[in-house]
Amino acid sequence: MARKRQMKLSAYLVGTGMHAGSWRLEQAHPGASIDIDYYRRLVQTAERGKFDIAFLADSLAINDQSHPNILNRFEPITLIAALAGATSRIGLVATASTSYIEPFNLARLFMSADHISKGRVGWNIVTTRDLSGSTARNFGASTHPELALRYQKAAEFVNVVRGLWDSWEDDAFIFNKETGVVFDPNKLHRIRHKGEFFEVEGPLNIARSPQGHPVLVQAGNSEPGQQFAAQIGEIIFAIKFNFEDARQYYQAFKERIVSFGRNPDDVYILQGISPVIGATEEEARLKLKRLERLLPDDTIMGFLADYFRELDLSRFTPETASKEAGLHTLNAIHPDYRKHQPVIIRENPTLREVYSLIIGSFSGDHLIGTPEKIADTLEKWFLEGAADGFMLMSPALPDGLEEFIDRVVPILQQRGLFKKDYEGTTLREHFGLPVPPNRFCRQTV
Amino acid sequence: MARKRQMKLSAYLVGTGMHAGSWRLEQAHPGASIDIDYYRRLVQTAERGKFDIAFLADSLAINDQSHPNILNRFEPITLIAALAGATSRIGLVATASTSYIEPFNLARLFMSADHISKGRVGWNIVTTRDLSGSTARNFGASTHPELALRYQKAAEFVNVVRGLWDSWEDDAFIFNKETGVVFDPNKLHRIRHKGEFFEVEGPLNIARSPQGHPVLVQAGNSEPGQQFAAQIGEIIFAIKFNFEDARQYYQAFKERIVSFGRNPDDVYILQGISPVIGATEEEARLKLKRLERLLPDDTIMGFLADYFRELDLSRFTPETASKEAGLHTLNAIHPDYRKHQPVIIRENPTLREVYSLIIGSFSGDHLIGTPEKIADTLEKWFLEGAADGFMLMSPALPDGLEEFIDRVVPILQQRGLFKKDYEGTTLREHFGLPVPPNRFCRQTV
Repeated sequence: MARKRQMKLSAYLVGTGMHAGSWRLEQAHPGASIDIDYYRRLVQTAERGKFDIAFLADSLAINDQSHPNILNRFEPITLIAALAGATSRIGLVATASTSYIEPFNLARLFMSADHISKGRVGWNIVTTRDLSGSTARNFGASTHPELALRYQKAAEFVNVVRGLWDSWEDDAFIFNKETGVVFDPNKLHRIRHKGEFFEVEGPLNIARSPQGHPVLVQAGNSEPGQQFAAQIGEIIFAIKFNFEDARQYYQAFKERIVSFGRNPDDVYILQGISPVIGATEEEARLKLKRLERLLPDDTIMGFLADYFRELDLSRFTPETASKEAGLHTLNAIHPDYRKHQPVIIRENPTLREVYSLIIGSFSGDHLIGTPEKIADTLEKWFLEGAADGFMLMSPALPDGLEEFIDRVVPILQQRGLFKKDYEGTTLREHFGLPVPPNRFCRQTV
Repeated sequence: MARKRQMKLSAYLVGTGMHAGSWRLEQAHPGASIDIDYYRRLVQTAERGKFDIAFLADSLAINDQSHPNILNRFEPITLIAALAGATSRIGLVATASTSYIEPFNLARLFMSADHISKGRVGWNIVTTRDLSGSTARNFGASTHPELALRYQKAAEFVNVVRGLWDSWEDDAFIFNKETGVVFDPNKLHRIRHKGEFFEVEGPLNIARSPQGHPVLVQAGNSEPGQQFAAQIGEIIFAIKFNFEDARQYYQAFKERIVSFGRNPDDVYILQGISPVIGATEEEARLKLKRLERLLPDDTIMGFLADYFRELDLSRFTPETASKEAGLHTLNAIHPDYRKHQPVIIRENPTLREVYSLIIGSFSGDHLIGTPEKIADTLEKWFLEGAADGFMLMSPALPDGLEEFIDRVVPILQQRGLFKKDYEGTTLREHFGLPVPPNRFCRQTV
């Protein structure tokens, strides 16, 4: 653990927060998801808290059941380009899918943002889950490709993008004003890729950034997703609801990384957390209850009816226990459900709580309470091999982020678990990640 | 002319300037095209000069002959998103092609940038010219579609994008904290487009911006390009090398606009200019000569050999007259050449001058000289029906822009030809362009 003696922190920034009722809080700004000044303040807050990353999620389709914060929101690559100018140190990670954009366009967009931020960008690679086909229908595709195919395509896509990013060797540009020589043509490379899914000649019309390549982030949870992440991910984002699950996942994933011949210390696993912070445990619980009450019943039941299409939930209310609704014995068609079912069987939550669990705005008892309790949980997970750091998915924003920074971060810093200031300037430097070598460079002997 | 009593000004921002030798000037910063701080200063300078627009061009492929400023440069949509935070009034126009990106992605990127800038964005619509096929090969296409097909596709593309931009009616979001109602589902629309080239269901996951839609900019020069521009363009960008050509183009284009049932006053024609400014005419001429000498002979001859593939130019030098090289009688295959040939026949320039003419870093005698002479030219073109404004394509940056703002703009302001300050805040307000109605809104009766 020598190199990783301190945990990493990433702030998941989404409008009024992860909780679907957060926009109804008295202090909430419901138009937050489309207010650039709000996002600038949010990312500046995260930078004040010495966070390593501000993280922007994404999706390519919406419907009437979508979370209020994603119905109307910024496209994340343009957003990080804008946020770069409001900050100077924090890493900026944008989500983009490999399923619905040309690799040449994506390579350019991310590398451009990486230059704009002077080397602080990361790409959260997703392949897009699209059970209803609504994403496919936004892109003229009759059907969304199935999981395994999506990851095959993603692997080729990422390979093409990384090749394009290496089009120019770092010392290709000469700019000799005397002789008029602009660049050394031997240091400009075409990938000439002809693969199963893509044909791309290159070169890219933008050179490598101060950190070489944007950092690759991945959150694949399925088997093909985890294989892909273990091969190419530099930062892994997972969500586990208790220490034992998190530790098992962490250990298994690090072994998976080793199985691909990679150094497990070069890959950081961040566990998603949605803490609810109070001066006392009781205050924190009350706060969560208040949030839960802000979820309209039909939002919850509409979402669950869509998620559990194979069940008839029409007789139930959000207060029905999950066992009564048939969730404990369900062999769900939703691929996501497998990870939730053990928790649901163990704790028999109400349907309201099941909803929160699924949409990721609930993390379990160990993250509800005083700043000390939350710091204790993070310390345990970090020191006992369940996490290299955390993705803070605050139920309510900006409050949840501010409270965490003002009340939890100082404890972590005091305990030596988190840095007191940035040391480097690029995202790779924050994580001690190596600058990727240029694939076209002759190795020095 | 009542509404357009004042001319509009746009600054074409590209690294060290339009002139391919500009990077070799003693004061030039050859890495300018990838330096975000440089671009921030540049756009702030343009805003200091009360320019209506900062304009960013684009291309999707490069080769060894490419202009030094485009080999390694920002992707323009991420760039305008970043520049939005460094400015508060100037319009920001980014170029993007309709030939190599999904309309859903493009609609999002531009609308996101438009929100980030609070309604100051324009989209310069291009279809991409690709004589060598190098762009097509970056996108897995075996051949680049020919001109007429590209514009058919562009028309459908723009229609889809505008439809997606109207997904949300302006008052769709309710955010009633009491009742928990987020939006009125009757005010969320799917375009359900099934056309010849695209199938897109919608809705877009971002609402209309403070100016409704980004402003549509077009520079089509071919017959299908001009038809397309006259149908959908709000700002037209042309390059003509003398008053008579400019006036004829202007008059004919305004008639074309009328033929589509549009109000010609709702469409602004900006003429591209590359002025060379000196305290005296002689100083200006010397300045241009100095620039011309910075073009290496093989840059010029390599470019022209590629441009005039049907000629053998190997026996000639940049000082050869165009007539001797066979340019006057040439029936050129390059579609661009038709617009240059009359000038070339009339003036019999050297090949060096032909090169400058083609790459747009030379505007003719009427734009070389003192600030007064340049102001006189612009006044004449503006008042005598050849232009609604100008696109300043400075041969060298940042000097050309600074000189224009410090020495020409004050004269134009004194003469009442150009505004002394911004009145509105959106790009549409700068041009007095109407906010496009939402196509899905029931008309009020």
